[in-house]
Amino acid sequence: MPETGFVLDGALEAVGLPLGDWPLCRVFLFDDARYPWLMLVPRRADRREIIELSSEDQAQLFSEISRAMTALQGVAKPDKLNLGALGNVTPQLHIHIVGRYVSDEAWPGPVWGQGTRKPYPPHMVGILMDKLARALGFEA
Amino acid sequence: MPETGFVLDGALEAVGLPLGDWPLCRVFLFDDARYPWLMLVPRRADRREIIELSSEDQAQLFSEISRAMTALQGVAKPDKLNLGALGNVTPQLHIHIVGRYVSDEAWPGPVWGQGTRKPYPPHMVGILMDKLARALGFEA
Repeated sequence: MPETGFVLDGALEAVGLPLGDWPLCRVFLFDDARYPWLMLVPRRADRREIIELSSEDQAQLFSEISRAMTALQGVAKPDKLNLGALGNVTPQLHIHIVGRYVSDEAWPGPVWGQGTRKPYPPHMVGILMDKLARALGFEA
Repeated sequence: MPETGFVLDGALEAVGLPLGDWPLCRVFLFDDARYPWLMLVPRRADRREIIELSSEDQAQLFSEISRAMTALQGVAKPDKLNLGALGNVTPQLHIHIVGRYVSDEAWPGPVWGQGTRKPYPPHMVGILMDKLARALGFEA
């Protein structure tokens, strides 16, 4: 699966802490301590919609979404998983997988566009990223 | 793909105008005239999360999501497609595919939990449902 001309959008780079690369997507921890939140960015240039990917890439994307959901469920044990692909603000194709809790500040509404992002404190983020990276298969 | 014990949740039934059945999902027009909006409900009992489906059903679901996106794009020509699987309010597994416009009332925020649903006027909904049903392959 060659990558030609893929450059991560600066707006996604600003909120994403990279965990590793799968065959199609770069996997990020979304830097918002309010919710356990993964973001997948297919390493393909100039894609805004899932259906702009090839059939093969779409199948790979959905496989990676499923794998990310399973890992986040195992690590964070949320009350509900939320999946979203919006791109209304940042057009580069990216997919959100968010662990939700009945006690979280946006429940039961969506997380997008709600309140103010709270970056992780430095002493917390390393521990969480290590645990997620192992669950996602990026480390032994 | 047998269906055992699947019963559509009343809350989904109240907002969904059925367009037809694909191998896995029942496909609905979401009855909100503010946005062109399809809803897919896998005909499987007692599922809340995508990852609670079998691997085979997950692959079928994603294929049907892609097909629904392509049809909605063709019929409604939105500025952006939004995909969401939340289920925070109604737990029965269901997937939203929403056509968004820069001019719509929730742009660029998500549609879920925003404003008040506006059911279609009866004289409009039949025309739209016919057009969608053809694009989705439910009619010759």
